[in-house]
Amino acid sequence: MLSEEVKALLEAVEKGTVTVDEALGRLRRLPVEDLGFAQLDTHRELRQGFPEAIYAEKKTPEQTVAIARRMLEATSAPVLATRVPEPTAQALLDEFPGALHNEPARLVVVRSRDSSLPALGTVAVICAGTSDLPVAEEAAGTAEALGAVVDRIVDVGVAGLHRLLAVQDRLSATRAVIVVAGMEGALASLVGGITSAPVIAVPTSIGYGSSFDGLAALLAMLNSCAAGISVTNIDNGFGAAVCAHRMLAHRPA
Amino acid sequence: MLSEEVKALLEAVEKGTVTVDEALGRLRRLPVEDLGFAQLDTHRELRQGFPEAIYAEKKTPEQTVAIARRMLEATSAPVLATRVPEPTAQALLDEFPGALHNEPARLVVVRSRDSSLPALGTVAVICAGTSDLPVAEEAAGTAEALGAVVDRIVDVGVAGLHRLLAVQDRLSATRAVIVVAGMEGALASLVGGITSAPVIAVPTSIGYGSSFDGLAALLAMLNSCAAGISVTNIDNGFGAAVCAHRMLAHRPA
Amino acid sequence: MLSEEVKALLEAVEKGTVTVDEALGRLRRLPVEDLGFAQLDTHRELRQGFPEAIYAEKKTPEQTVAIARRMLEATSAPVLATRVPEPTAQALLDEFPGALHNEPARLVVVRSRDSSLPALGTVAVICAGTSDLPVAEEAAGTAEALGAVVDRIVDVGVAGLHRLLAVQDRLSATRAVIVVAGMEGALASLVGGITSAPVIAVPTSIGYGSSFDGLAALLAMLNSCAAGISVTNIDNGFGAAVCAHRMLAHRPA
Amino acid sequence: MLSEEVKALLEAVEKGTVTVDEALGRLRRLPVEDLGFAQLDTHRELRQGFPEAIYAEKKTPEQTVAIARRMLEATSAPVLATRVPEPTAQALLDEFPGALHNEPARLVVVRSRDSSLPALGTVAVICAGTSDLPVAEEAAGTAEALGAVVDRIVDVGVAGLHRLLAVQDRLSATRAVIVVAGMEGALASLVGGITSAPVIAVPTSIGYGSSFDGLAALLAMLNSCAAGISVTNIDNGFGAAVCAHRMLAHRPA
Amino acid sequence: MLSEEVKALLEAVEKGTVTVDEALGRLRRLPVEDLGFAQLDTHRELRQGFPEAIYAEKKTPEQTVAIARRMLEATSAPVLATRVPEPTAQALLDEFPGALHNEPARLVVVRSRDSSLPALGTVAVICAGTSDLPVAEEAAGTAEALGAVVDRIVDVGVAGLHRLLAVQDRLSATRAVIVVAGMEGALASLVGGITSAPVIAVPTSIGYGSSFDGLAALLAMLNSCAAGISVTNIDNGFGAAVCAHRMLAHRPA
Amino acid sequence: MLSEEVKALLEAVEKGTVTVDEALGRLRRLPVEDLGFAQLDTHRELRQGFPEAIYAEKKTPEQTVAIARRMLEATSAPVLATRVPEPTAQALLDEFPGALHNEPARLVVVRSRDSSLPALGTVAVICAGTSDLPVAEEAAGTAEALGAVVDRIVDVGVAGLHRLLAVQDRLSATRAVIVVAGMEGALASLVGGITSAPVIAVPTSIGYGSSFDGLAALLAMLNSCAAGISVTNIDNGFGAAVCAHRMLAHRPA
Amino acid sequence: MLSEEVKALLEAVEKGTVTVDEALGRLRRLPVEDLGFAQLDTHRELRQGFPEAIYAEKKTPEQTVAIARRMLEATSAPVLATRVPEPTAQALLDEFPGALHNEPARLVVVRSRDSSLPALGTVAVICAGTSDLPVAEEAAGTAEALGAVVDRIVDVGVAGLHRLLAVQDRLSATRAVIVVAGMEGALASLVGGITSAPVIAVPTSIGYGSSFDGLAALLAMLNSCAAGISVTNIDNGFGAAVCAHRMLAHRPA
Amino acid sequence: MLSEEVKALLEAVEKGTVTVDEALGRLRRLPVEDLGFAQLDTHRELRQGFPEAIYAEKKTPEQTVAIARRMLEATSAPVLATRVPEPTAQALLDEFPGALHNEPARLVVVRSRDSSLPALGTVAVICAGTSDLPVAEEAAGTAEALGAVVDRIVDVGVAGLHRLLAVQDRLSATRAVIVVAGMEGALASLVGGITSAPVIAVPTSIGYGSSFDGLAALLAMLNSCAAGISVTNIDNGFGAAVCAHRMLAHRPA
Repeated sequence: MLSEEVKALLEAVEKGTVTVDEALGRLRRLPVEDLGFAQLDTHRELRQGFPEAIYAEKKTPEQTVAIARRMLEATSAPVLATRVPEPTAQALLDEFPGALHNEPARLVVVRSRDSSLPALGTVAVICAGTSDLPVAEEAAGTAEALGAVVDRIVDVGVAGLHRLLAVQDRLSATRAVIVVAGMEGALASLVGGITSAPVIAVPTSIGYGSSFDGLAALLAMLNSCAAGISVTNIDNGFGAAVCAHRMLAHRPA
Repeated sequence: MLSEEVKALLEAVEKGTVTVDEALGRLRRLPVEDLGFAQLDTHRELRQGFPEAIYAEKKTPEQTVAIARRMLEATSAPVLATRVPEPTAQALLDEFPGALHNEPARLVVVRSRDSSLPALGTVAVICAGTSDLPVAEEAAGTAEALGAVVDRIVDVGVAGLHRLLAVQDRLSATRAVIVVAGMEGALASLVGGITSAPVIAVPTSIGYGSSFDGLAALLAMLNSCAAGISVTNIDNGFGAAVCAHRMLAHRPA
Repeated sequence: MLSEEVKALLEAVEKGTVTVDEALGRLRRLPVEDLGFAQLDTHRELRQGFPEAIYAEKKTPEQTVAIARRMLEATSAPVLATRVPEPTAQALLDEFPGALHNEPARLVVVRSRDSSLPALGTVAVICAGTSDLPVAEEAAGTAEALGAVVDRIVDVGVAGLHRLLAVQDRLSATRAVIVVAGMEGALASLVGGITSAPVIAVPTSIGYGSSFDGLAALLAMLNSCAAGISVTNIDNGFGAAVCAHRMLAHRPA
Repeated sequence: MLSEEVKALLEAVEKGTVTVDEALGRLRRLPVEDLGFAQLDTHRELRQGFPEAIYAEKKTPEQTVAIARRMLEATSAPVLATRVPEPTAQALLDEFPGALHNEPARLVVVRSRDSSLPALGTVAVICAGTSDLPVAEEAAGTAEALGAVVDRIVDVGVAGLHRLLAVQDRLSATRAVIVVAGMEGALASLVGGITSAPVIAVPTSIGYGSSFDGLAALLAMLNSCAAGISVTNIDNGFGAAVCAHRMLAHRPA
Repeated sequence: MLSEEVKALLEAVEKGTVTVDEALGRLRRLPVEDLGFAQLDTHRELRQGFPEAIYAEKKTPEQTVAIARRMLEATSAPVLATRVPEPTAQALLDEFPGALHNEPARLVVVRSRDSSLPALGTVAVICAGTSDLPVAEEAAGTAEALGAVVDRIVDVGVAGLHRLLAVQDRLSATRAVIVVAGMEGALASLVGGITSAPVIAVPTSIGYGSSFDGLAALLAMLNSCAAGISVTNIDNGFGAAVCAHRMLAHRPA
Repeated sequence: MLSEEVKALLEAVEKGTVTVDEALGRLRRLPVEDLGFAQLDTHRELRQGFPEAIYAEKKTPEQTVAIARRMLEATSAPVLATRVPEPTAQALLDEFPGALHNEPARLVVVRSRDSSLPALGTVAVICAGTSDLPVAEEAAGTAEALGAVVDRIVDVGVAGLHRLLAVQDRLSATRAVIVVAGMEGALASLVGGITSAPVIAVPTSIGYGSSFDGLAALLAMLNSCAAGISVTNIDNGFGAAVCAHRMLAHRPA
Repeated sequence: MLSEEVKALLEAVEKGTVTVDEALGRLRRLPVEDLGFAQLDTHRELRQGFPEAIYAEKKTPEQTVAIARRMLEATSAPVLATRVPEPTAQALLDEFPGALHNEPARLVVVRSRDSSLPALGTVAVICAGTSDLPVAEEAAGTAEALGAVVDRIVDVGVAGLHRLLAVQDRLSATRAVIVVAGMEGALASLVGGITSAPVIAVPTSIGYGSSFDGLAALLAMLNSCAAGISVTNIDNGFGAAVCAHRMLAHRPA
Repeated sequence: MLSEEVKALLEAVEKGTVTVDEALGRLRRLPVEDLGFAQLDTHRELRQGFPEAIYAEKKTPEQTVAIARRMLEATSAPVLATRVPEPTAQALLDEFPGALHNEPARLVVVRSRDSSLPALGTVAVICAGTSDLPVAEEAAGTAEALGAVVDRIVDVGVAGLHRLLAVQDRLSATRAVIVVAGMEGALASLVGGITSAPVIAVPTSIGYGSSFDGLAALLAMLNSCAAGISVTNIDNGFGAAVCAHRMLAHRPA
């Protein structure tokens, strides 16, 4: 919304108490938050439906609760707390009784009363081993919080190809596929080769030695010979879900 | 399509010349390319409309022309030659008079006669400096070859924010945005912050010293604080375009 | 084994209640786990005798015990739990009284009742210092669980060449040699130079400073001037033993 | 062969011109090349059948020819020149009319007249793309020079799973499999998952950007979730073949 | 300057042909380049006196000359071409007879007729060896082009402390010191320890082996135990000079 | 101060008990700490007003208090303890009642009685997220301890450009800007593009995965396309403040 | 000592019960530990006076005591335990009342009764900051245990050149200088520039951020422009002392 | 030599025309080059006998000749030009007829007429393969130029231990050993284990793939389990020789 100051200026011009040249000069000097907000409405619009996220790992329960409360007053979007320590999760559930707690993902989702997300279609979240589950659940829980239906597919290692081939149809029935894998990250290439859906690859830090905390999987995914795969940061299940949300929710203006 | 061999087997079962148990045994031993092709139909389907690409850099003109000819016989998809040396480009244009040559991108696109791509909507390709143009053009040319309309936006450096803000509406009018940037790669974060469209970030090897041939831009893009950005390999304009194509063309089965 | 569904279909074709064309159509749509399993029999065969392994480090005792129980029902292969915390080891021994606990290797091996491994010959496991012993024992314990006889050779540092030369004959009397070394990893080159046996090099994370958690040893082993040495991930004693097992147990089909 | 000096010493003892104690003292002081050669006979034995290799890339044709000539006089093993420039290849063929020139591998093999290699069985060399062929051919040509039968399998990318499944039986019919792959190197994991044969993974420098000249493939292969895969240096087709040769030719003493 | 459209709008409000509310609405929708330019005047102001720079290395002489000509029409600031190949330097000198050519720095400076830079004080540019001179000259030439007086101090290696102590007073007589050093980059720490002036450290790619193209010097400078040193990219003499220019020319608004 | 020995020597020359040549000879042999101190007076001068800093993290409270007490006796400059554990902070406050404790920065500042810092102007400290606050406060607190007025600007992420544009004037009203940012570090480029003030960029270790503990931000800042930005070590708020202090306090001699 | 078997063989030759040719054949087959030990006497000799070292960090007090006891029985050299935890130090002192405990270095030295080291001359150990003291003391304590006189020089940072110049004579009065420094490691270059003594540089892990646990100092020292400096692993004070010991104690044979 | 100014000052004190206090004040302000040179005489002394070296690789023949001529006038030490291109070598030989040209090392040594080096004893230079010869010769040639006798030992790979054991006595007969090795650099550990002489390890860039231009050898040598080995930069044969020279030539003052 344009500021009151601009309105007052226009009224003064209308009344003739300020000349056009004076008004031009004042507009030039107006702080950008006044004019800028008008310009950047699209920006605010853009955030509608986007999650507001709190990286809770290094915050006290009180801090996280306070930030969440403030966010819920300011937005109708769901509020997500990621990497939530157990005591913080309890504090959030106490404060917001309707909140959802995804324990393996260490994710808490709080919705404002009046939020109603449009139905956005299905996203597959596929991962290879049980160790990758926390990251996969962070992706799945975030995607659900943003209005997607999630098809979870787990335990589909590249060493057992038949299990992957068995879910080919489920992959193709979705609007986007999030592949979560550590170690050598080869699952992303395989999925990219058997579906035409957009594939978002999330390397995880699962592994040891020369996995270098996920570097091996990250490099492998970036160099996939299956064309058209894109990659997020290591362990960034949240980011992959927002990436999918952009695909599902964005409508060209 | 299932192989003739399977059909013949079924007919023999129907006629009673082969027992059910014998037929089961033979099915077990059938080479996978026979049954497999049936299973993998979706796979082949998936490739419809996908470009067949030839990395031409280290091939002779004769090799590239021969591969392109073979591909065009086997597929109705457009054939792309990427990183095409000048003599190879000339050879391709001689052989395929209707081919398109995108010179800055060193890209040649040849379409088979009967290929008609569906209209898929608009993709923005935005880059910061003129040095990033070859990669940006590889993305743009590939996207066009696959049926997208491309809105090219160049010379939008982060040091000149007003130029970026001026194209905000053009970005939001597209179905996906490809951001191409070298050096510190900050443009991806900025674009991600002002549009809700899917953003595919392509780091380039433009820079020197501690850019380490694109590593600086790659890491920056992977760590973007604008949520939901995904990243391709360094200089991989082709891959970014295929990534966008998956978003535009994929329909859940 | 091919699924019942395929058998029923063939019987229907035999009876004439389903036409060949209908049968072809149904085969095309059969889920891959049905046809696929037939195709992938070799795959299952391959796993016979391979250890099923549980990476127990970050699992609760209950989880590890439950997974081990489920595996033992599904396979006749021995079940290995690697990097087993002390309480988990106790829980496994309580549940499976016949289990073997290799303490330095933090390895627990449980065999199903009816498993009887073929005699596969001897593998040498050689390491330089006592610090490398846990990784060496993980290799030795795994190899034994898979049916190999293991000749353990320890404390053979490159700074004491005579100790290495003294075991030359023991190395040559084996079918494969696993070399476990941290720091500069030179032992692998030395062993490769004095035996014609296959040499599997396992870098360890033993060292400090510019060993970079095993990177120095890994790079040294990959660049060995003794030809024909191959390398596993850092600290991957388990993988080296499975690698040796492939050499000992595989028979060309 | 033990040195003349030792023989003379023994004869002097026999004749009584040197006492046993004097002889003991002299033996202690003998240079190691005399006694050592005796000790290290196994070592020389080991090299029987091993190729003597010349890294020809940075040598003049004259140098390479001279070294090859000297080697052929000293050993009955085949002599291999690797990474041979074109003029050097020509010079070798002129000098040794029976030499074999594997052009894509830039490999020249010269056998001494009396070399007759034992039949050692089959090795599969499998690679994904045509760009990996030079490294694959270096492996294949070396393996053949050492007495193996080689089954070459090319163009089996992970994005086309059916092509891989179609060669499953050929893989299992071999005694060892060499997997050559650049980019994300996922083929090694796939092959490891469908065969029980020993798998030697060779990362190649094929790729660009964050492949970092083969680092991505190397790390991926070291972190493979298919157990029991071992890895060589980047582009080291020669080393992989010698590794396979150790498996095929070594007999426990 | 605010756009004509805004002026017309204000005049319409003054005349009463547009209501205040209508005007508010239109202002909200105005393209950002109109209002934005007003807002971003400071931005343009900021660039006054800043060099416009052309990275000439990979451009044709014609391209560089054309870009320089366009820039000179648009700005009163000097135009710098950096890393200029010899033919391009000649072309620039032909086109702009008054241009300055700093040959060791491969730098060409062209001034518009009416540019008159304020006197900004002295900057010291100090480097250790003659190999660092091209980078040092890029810094010195750029600083001079921007109005600084430059005191060049060369051949002051850390192995000859007395030479450094001898120039201590010259360092302190300047407003900022640019230290250019490759290899271990220790000169930056030494200079930081003997002057209270701002120190801008420029690592160079001079060195070999584990200098890793300047990485060693870069890390050393970032970890200097002399407090308050800041660092630019490797070989970035141009950037260091602009950094010094900010210190000399900026006046708080 | 020059040593007593020199004074005695001069007096002996004055009295004629030592000849000029003898005196010259003795001066040549004088230990450097005597003459050197005279020479290096500027050096000591330089440190006037510089903070003496104690890195308190790994020291006991007693050690830190003792060092601080000794420093305060030797210098009139303020004494800073950085990264101060809570018990050490308490001990310092007990010992020096007037000390300032900046808790988020873990910084304690103690001034000697007679220290009076000159007014040096304003420094802006700007950071993107609340996680960067400790580093930003270390910079702000240090700058204040050295006599600067600090304008703190927080929560200005690149994903919310309007907030950055809104503070453009505050940035330009300062003499230097310290930009503190983790993750992709893009804020430094943006700030550099909208102000002509000197910009000191401090990468932080905030981030995860491929941020590699601040490496991503460090590389991005070093490669900024906004010219004239200089960079400190990761998390080095203290160093950035001293860097700004050099700019504000240094007067050419 | 040569084995009894060789003696018996020679006696048989002397007696004529074994022919020279038979004797030659048997010598060839003798196990290497017999002849080898003779050959490798120099090797054992070499270790005289070298410390036997126990890396005690991850051993129990009982283990370390037991190993030390065994070593003392086998050698007359002093036994060093490095990185000794407090309880282990106590256990060693209880067991060996005459043992020396260097607390900052976490070093315990135990001498056998009859060890008397020759006087070897002086080694300087110089370090910059108090944080580097543990590594410096590990070097100093080890050198003393091996018979050197140590001149400790601390707190000689490169930011205070006069302190370094003041100790120039002490450096030159030694037979070797060990320089211990973290952060940017520049002290090694400075010391190398003012003394002709051998300089052994020990990078330490002191630092933060882009020191990358000592990598910055390591690279700087390897790239020193002061010729003839050699470098040890990060934090390897023990190794540097043994390096100096080689210089002081070795006499050409 | 102390400056004339100091002498004049002392004479004025002697005459009574300047008081002692005035003289003290003036001494304090004397530029460091005057007093400093006196102080730093030891420094100049130190360089006696050290080679003055010219890194000739990127210089024109004229530049290198001119620098060499200037150096020879200023010092009695030999002048070395390293990495000398062929035309420069010819120019140096033309200018200085008595110069020595070590072709494989690309080293030219010019002695001043009156230089006569003291006999310093023997240094061994040992390397593994012929590819390491240029670096080994740079070390050997430099050591000889500085007065050492050099015992060259080549072709001693770790894969042929007997060749190493055969030269054990030659190693022990020297005062220092320089080990030159690329690939996995294990030779340094082996040499360190069989001699008590000081061992200077020089990693070379020989290798490919994951040797990363010598990084593998560098890390291996830094992590050697043979205690007391020190390391130089990659390919730094010159530096290793100067390191040895320090050991041979330095006499404690």
